Amino acid sequence: MLDKTKDPVAERDFKVVGTRPVRPDGVDKVTGRARFGADISAPGMLVGKVKRSPHAHAKLVSIDTEKALALPGVKAVVTRDDFAENKKQCDVLRNIMAREKVLYDGHAVAAVAATSATVARKALKLIEVEYDVLPHVIDVDEAMKPGAPLLHDDMITKGVDPEPETASNIAQRYEFGHGDVEKGFAEADVVVERDFKTAAAHQGYIEPHACLASFTPDGQGELWCCTQGHYAIRGFCADLLGMDISKLRVTASEIGGGFGGKTTVFLEPLALALSRKTGRPVKMVMSREEVFRASGPTASTSSRVKVGATKDGKITAGEAEFRYQGGAFKGSPVQFGAMCAFACYALENVKTVGYDVVTNRPKQAAYRAPGAPMAAFAVESVIEELAVELSIDPVELRLINAAEEGDQSSFGPTFPRIGLVETLEATKAHEHFSAPLGPNQGRGIASGYWFNFGGATSVSLNIQPDGTVALAVGTPDIGGSRASMSLMAAEELGIAYEKVKAIVADTASLGYNEVSHGSRVTFASGLATIEAARNAKKILCARAAKMWEIPEEAVEWVDGHARPAGANAGDFEPMSLADIAKVAEQTGGPISGHQEHNASGAGASFATHMVDVEVDPETGRAHVVRYTAVQDAGKAIHPSYVEGQFQGGAAQGVGWALNEEYIYNDDGRLENPGFLDYRIPVCSDLPMLDTVIVEVPNPGHPYGVRGVGETGIVPPMAAIANAVSAAAGVRMTELPMSPPKLLKAINAKKANGSA
Amino acid sequence: MLDKTKDPVAERDFKVVGTRPVRPDGVDKVTGRARFGADISAPGMLVGKVKRSPHAHAKLVSIDTEKALALPGVKAVVTRDDFAENKKQCDVLRNIMAREKVLYDGHAVAAVAATSATVARKALKLIEVEYDVLPHVIDVDEAMKPGAPLLHDDMITKGVDPEPETASNIAQRYEFGHGDVEKGFAEADVVVERDFKTAAAHQGYIEPHACLASFTPDGQGELWCCTQGHYAIRGFCADLLGMDISKLRVTASEIGGGFGGKTTVFLEPLALALSRKTGRPVKMVMSREEVFRASGPTASTSSRVKVGATKDGKITAGEAEFRYQGGAFKGSPVQFGAMCAFACYALENVKTVGYDVVTNRPKQAAYRAPGAPMAAFAVESVIEELAVELSIDPVELRLINAAEEGDQSSFGPTFPRIGLVETLEATKAHEHFSAPLGPNQGRGIASGYWFNFGGATSVSLNIQPDGTVALAVGTPDIGGSRASMSLMAAEELGIAYEKVKAIVADTASLGYNEVSHGSRVTFASGLATIEAARNAKKILCARAAKMWEIPEEAVEWVDGHARPAGANAGDFEPMSLADIAKVAEQTGGPISGHQEHNASGAGASFATHMVDVEVDPETGRAHVVRYTAVQDAGKAIHPSYVEGQFQGGAAQGVGWALNEEYIYNDDGRLENPGFLDYRIPVCSDLPMLDTVIVEVPNPGHPYGVRGVGETGIVPPMAAIANAVSAAAGVRMTELPMSPPKLLKAINAKKANGSA
Repeated sequence: MLDKTKDPVAERDFKVVGTRPVRPDGVDKVTGRARFGADISAPGMLVGKVKRSPHAHAKLVSIDTEKALALPGVKAVVTRDDFAENKKQCDVLRNIMAREKVLYDGHAVAAVAATSATVARKALKLIEVEYDVLPHVIDVDEAMKPGAPLLHDDMITKGVDPEPETASNIAQRYEFGHGDVEKGFAEADVVVERDFKTAAAHQGYIEPHACLASFTPDGQGELWCCTQGHYAIRGFCADLLGMDISKLRVTASEIGGGFGGKTTVFLEPLALALSRKTGRPVKMVMSREEVFRASGPTASTSSRVKVGATKDGKITAGEAEFRYQGGAFKGSPVQFGAMCAFACYALENVKTVGYDVVTNRPKQAAYRAPGAPMAAFAVESVIEELAVELSIDPVELRLINAAEEGDQSSFGPTFPRIGLVETLEATKAHEHFSAPLGPNQGRGIASGYWFNFGGATSVSLNIQPDGTVALAVGTPDIGGSRASMSLMAAEELGIAYEKVKAIVADTASLGYNEVSHGSRVTFASGLATIEAARNAKKILCARAAKMWEIPEEAVEWVDGHARPAGANAGDFEPMSLADIAKVAEQTGGPISGHQEHNASGAGASFATHMVDVEVDPETGRAHVVRYTAVQDAGKAIHPSYVEGQFQGGAAQGVGWALNEEYIYNDDGRLENPGFLDYRIPVCSDLPMLDTVIVEVPNPGHPYGVRGVGETGIVPPMAAIANAVSAAAGVRMTELPMSPPKLLKAINAKKANGSA
Repeated sequence: MLDKTKDPVAERDFKVVGTRPVRPDGVDKVTGRARFGADISAPGMLVGKVKRSPHAHAKLVSIDTEKALALPGVKAVVTRDDFAENKKQCDVLRNIMAREKVLYDGHAVAAVAATSATVARKALKLIEVEYDVLPHVIDVDEAMKPGAPLLHDDMITKGVDPEPETASNIAQRYEFGHGDVEKGFAEADVVVERDFKTAAAHQGYIEPHACLASFTPDGQGELWCCTQGHYAIRGFCADLLGMDISKLRVTASEIGGGFGGKTTVFLEPLALALSRKTGRPVKMVMSREEVFRASGPTASTSSRVKVGATKDGKITAGEAEFRYQGGAFKGSPVQFGAMCAFACYALENVKTVGYDVVTNRPKQAAYRAPGAPMAAFAVESVIEELAVELSIDPVELRLINAAEEGDQSSFGPTFPRIGLVETLEATKAHEHFSAPLGPNQGRGIASGYWFNFGGATSVSLNIQPDGTVALAVGTPDIGGSRASMSLMAAEELGIAYEKVKAIVADTASLGYNEVSHGSRVTFASGLATIEAARNAKKILCARAAKMWEIPEEAVEWVDGHARPAGANAGDFEPMSLADIAKVAEQTGGPISGHQEHNASGAGASFATHMVDVEVDPETGRAHVVRYTAVQDAGKAIHPSYVEGQFQGGAAQGVGWALNEEYIYNDDGRLENPGFLDYRIPVCSDLPMLDTVIVEVPNPGHPYGVRGVGETGIVPPMAAIANAVSAAAGVRMTELPMSPPKLLKAINAKKANGSA
């Protein structure tokens, strides 16, 4: 697939990168020895629990903690009164602890620290909260209507000119695009326009939020927690507690899944506040019900997409409006949705509009490629319909319009080298593409795009006296990054993978690192690791030069050895890293390489997924029978983990497409806060998820790495919807396509057919 | 005292350095929250215990672990069979686990891991060890005699030309000096020659050795332990367990005293081996009895010193022979003793010889200025006698002969700027010097020298987004170094002390660091901290330059701000560290400064102590009634901790001088392995220990820092012996000068006097 003449990176003869060694955290994880958020304890520790609102929307009139505090074993209660107003983190503050109002079922109103979980639970019941219940709104379209219950009296929509004079639940309007869509649609031979809806889905990580906080009377804090970004958690907590950042040391535990949902604070500031108040360590662990009610799912959405094309398949215009509700506070990922919607296509005329809407639901948190999957579901469904109407193979239709290097993206920037075409070609070339389908089966195809991020990163690479390497990175390992970083360090230094041991350092030991999100870790921490290794190699060469008594520039690093560079440098036996490390103390001291940077040059990643679904017309059950995920990884550092990311995205996509949804009752209470009623895919729901790694090197990374973690969840819902629609003979436009919904559509079609 | 014209360092106007802020670990330590070696636990943890030899010297015939292993709850036993031979760490290996022979009472022969301490103790009794008891030797002079029981059949004395043909207990002979001592003694008007003995004293740290080890089946280990040097511990353990250094992560706990005694391994490799064998974490904690029997006290010594001088006090020759027994393995600190013995004096003719001797005692470990105090006790006692014989004030006699900048030291190198004369002048100027003495009181004076070390050091200084600073050092904080490092970082960056938070990083997070020993931390880690801060300042200036769009060289760092340098640089508002840190992500990423080096330029430190002792002629009890310790600190970064070091050295010196000793019975068993029978000074034994900090800047450090931790224990024994001798009217030449010994001397003198 890869045109090796185009990029020198592809020509590189990797020795370690691209192999599949066992992960260093593997044994600990399979034997139960790995320490997750709830696995650390401290002497004298208290248990913290949160009292939560049973109302979707209410004025918080009063909180009486007296009876709770009188209960033996209760050491402290914190409420809104324990947190100072914070303009910078206004919404985060109100989300972790309700202030003027409760805004969703499950919103925290108080937290207690007690000597046992039993006492803490009793104390929660003794906290008396007076609410003044208000009307609520759950659905995004309802929330946008004039006259809808208002969550924030002062919310004036941004991004509208002139600014509206009255408050609404619309926080912001976004618009992207170029060209003239009206002109484009006029040029079209076929136009398809559809409305879509998607439900809120939770990231569904195995491990609930958990932390242990310890605060000393002189204002120093320690926090151990399960997070995708301990530096970010530290920043939020320091800010909310009014303390210097350096006085709070945060250590990230092993993480039992995050997928974007562990990028902000929930319990952590409460645990710290309780520890500050009691002078004792405080441990807090969410129940699964709390995870569902009070941590962030992704946004539910509503959208309208319109695409026009000529008879020969050239898309003349694409237009879409996206309405994302992100829960009780502004910040839904609608902006990303509106940006990614048409990113796969090189369009002359394109326009997307997004509305960020608030409703009485928990504040959304990032979920894998936040915002993009819902937009892709809508757009790729329309593209499929267009292909059917035009009688063009859906892959061909996409190839005709596919974005390539040099094309202006639908959201502005011009693409550098990207790999969408290569994923489409690989899809077409795959045996799956032409495999026969059984009865009641349909095949769906969809493509997807995600930006991938770079960002602030710090890495230290320390060479040990025996020539082994300790690599300290600051991005929690959510997908095997300790192995990937070790592979890159080993590759760059020219040593064996086994000689490198990577750890995730705490916030006090290493410089600042952005969260493990945006598919940035393998790219940005990897880039920093390579740069740190290069800095170390410079020192290694300098030490060899010192020993050989030749100029530093007369030494080069080749194949894990310092060697005299050129004929005039002299005749010296090459020295290995271990040789130099052994005598480092005599030649100047320990040898380390460091890198701090704000990594730019992240490479966009495209995927094309192909799925076969069998629909049971009697029950409306859609079952995935075959799945192939094709994605451009740039360069797969550890192919097994890349494949795992592809598979994980597809698996989560299957759940989102077919079953997962937040179900609210009329009072605005979440009715299914548990894995028995909120149905994520289990083994029997999934076939083997096949993967194809395409490698179109990212020119912004020395090894060509692109992020891979998120793009894989962008195409599945559309691909599955296309397959379900083909199998059932009815176009499905709402997620999840659960049996009752699908059966209803099949029956309605039958009724129409027979009518 | 300080001649400010001589050194620009002294002229520096320090803003933060020299103040006395509260220590960052203070609250945790006084509230009991600080985590020491025994304070960490892990789920599924086992308890490890050691079976120890009851014999001073025996062949280890067999070890039968069958019955122990059959005991329910016993998970593993390790013996010599679990450790491969290790040429590099031959003695360390044999010390942590007896191999061919047991060499001292308390020598480890097996270790067990069990589900509880009770089970582990029972299991120890069930381990059957067959010994073939051999004759033993405890005293150093006895051990040197031909025909003494031999510990190592192959020990041929090194440093003797030609090498002896037969084995002995003498591991090594050292010789230092210059000139012609015979000629020197011939020129002398007075010659004093004396024999001395000192007893083995234990460092007496409050916290016994403790660790928690965890080893995974794929060969990765974690170790948490109480140590002065977690990198060194890691090296020893990795070596003894046959693993890569980077695969073992060691975290240093808070430390309840070390004084040199926690610079090597005892339990740690056993705990790791037990964890490796069981697959479970293993915790091991020594009892106080084990600390005394099996961890390192310092060497006991025997010596002869001869000094000659002219009538006007000029020393014409100094000669000494030192015999140090360092326990069952080579490596007593006699070399240091022989080097430091005459270091205070500028001598034309000087010669010292040292013998490193093995006996059936626990392998000695470093103890504060290892080797120097015993030598100083002998030499400074003789100098005092000389002063009496010459009727010259003892301070004057020392001033006449004191080493100064440019003098060749008695062990070779020429001294750079040093501060002995200043300490003598300060002593003379002190009110104590001329205060009247009461009945039965005597005043003693002694000087002392210690090299002070530099060594391998790594420091990372990470600037946080709010402009506060996280400082990661790798030298365990044994004397307040987190505060001292923070002071230096704050001074260099021009920010408040409170804005810096220092931590001791683990071995996986930071480059290599030598042990916290040799009084090196404030010097070497301080130097690295200053260099790291300077590296950070360069980046801070570069970022300001970038924002101002002027060349980097046109920006300078003054008073905590980046400022345009010079009139042509442009007119910009100075930016504080916090201003620049706030936007660091936009200007290039996180800002950190690092430094790895092998610090050279450590400054020698000299002290002069003055002590008044009252002797009870009825009981022989000597009681210290007044004490003044004067020492050159170079520059006192945190004067309170410097004073604390002076006081600590003096206090331990009082114990060593008057009471502390290892007492063996005829079978070679230690009779006093506990604080009830091994008598360290308690509050009622000590007056307020006054201190005078002299500051003669070390030219090898930008702030002038010299180490201060060790020199303070060099003069006390001599000063106290001189005081006791003056008060009792009898020259005391053996330590400890305990009541029975002193009473015997007083009575002998009376008997002589009345005879």
